[in-house]
Amino acid sequence: METSITFTQAPIIIPPQNLSSREIGASLEFLGIVRELEKQNALEGLNYEAYEPMARRILTRHLEELGSRHPCEQVLFIHRLGWVPVGEASLFVRVLSSHRQEAFALLDELITRLKTDVPIWKSVCRDH
Amino acid sequence: METSITFTQAPIIIPPQNLSSREIGASLEFLGIVRELEKQNALEGLNYEAYEPMARRILTRHLEELGSRHPCEQVLFIHRLGWVPVGEASLFVRVLSSHRQEAFALLDELITRLKTDVPIWKSVCRDH
Repeated sequence: METSITFTQAPIIIPPQNLSSREIGASLEFLGIVRELEKQNALEGLNYEAYEPMARRILTRHLEELGSRHPCEQVLFIHRLGWVPVGEASLFVRVLSSHRQEAFALLDELITRLKTDVPIWKSVCRDH
Repeated sequence: METSITFTQAPIIIPPQNLSSREIGASLEFLGIVRELEKQNALEGLNYEAYEPMARRILTRHLEELGSRHPCEQVLFIHRLGWVPVGEASLFVRVLSSHRQEAFALLDELITRLKTDVPIWKSVCRDH
């Protein structure tokens, strides 16, 4: 499984589709967008910080494990860091696979693990 | 839930994101792409036909029902008809929601129902 992990301080630009194989039948894309309301508080945005080398290492390990259970062709992962205003994306993931079931399963589990097991923190303070 | 259903003979062009609310936290997009191999046969493409008024009516009913169980903000559905070469998309669906779980559930169930309960047929013959 081809994987790519990117952290960026800039707004996320969605890369063009690159169908590396004529056997790809499904492309599933997720954008995680900063919402205005979190626990009843109106936000202007969220600040994301990561311990990048460790985040990359842990994500790579999860992707290997998830890819062995849900074989996909390609996973492209982009996480924005720093201040992300409401309405803009903090996360983009694209999964390409032959059949959609694998892409759905891998993407869903990846995001769950990202929230619980990867050293990326968010805070409401702009200058944290 | 805002919904839009489009059938088109032309290649699918993905519409720009339109975040209608500051409460949208998830955008999930699916592209169904024609694969080269189907049941061990190498294809050049697939031909899609629909009984459009009925397909639209049934899809609308499914979206209403799915939206009541998995409340989302917006569903944008585009199906290409006619000849679709390998490597090109026959289907695009975008679901916007506050939380990702609803978008995943709605999209997954919608595609399952599309394949079993909506009058859209595919065939391997170009001039069917």
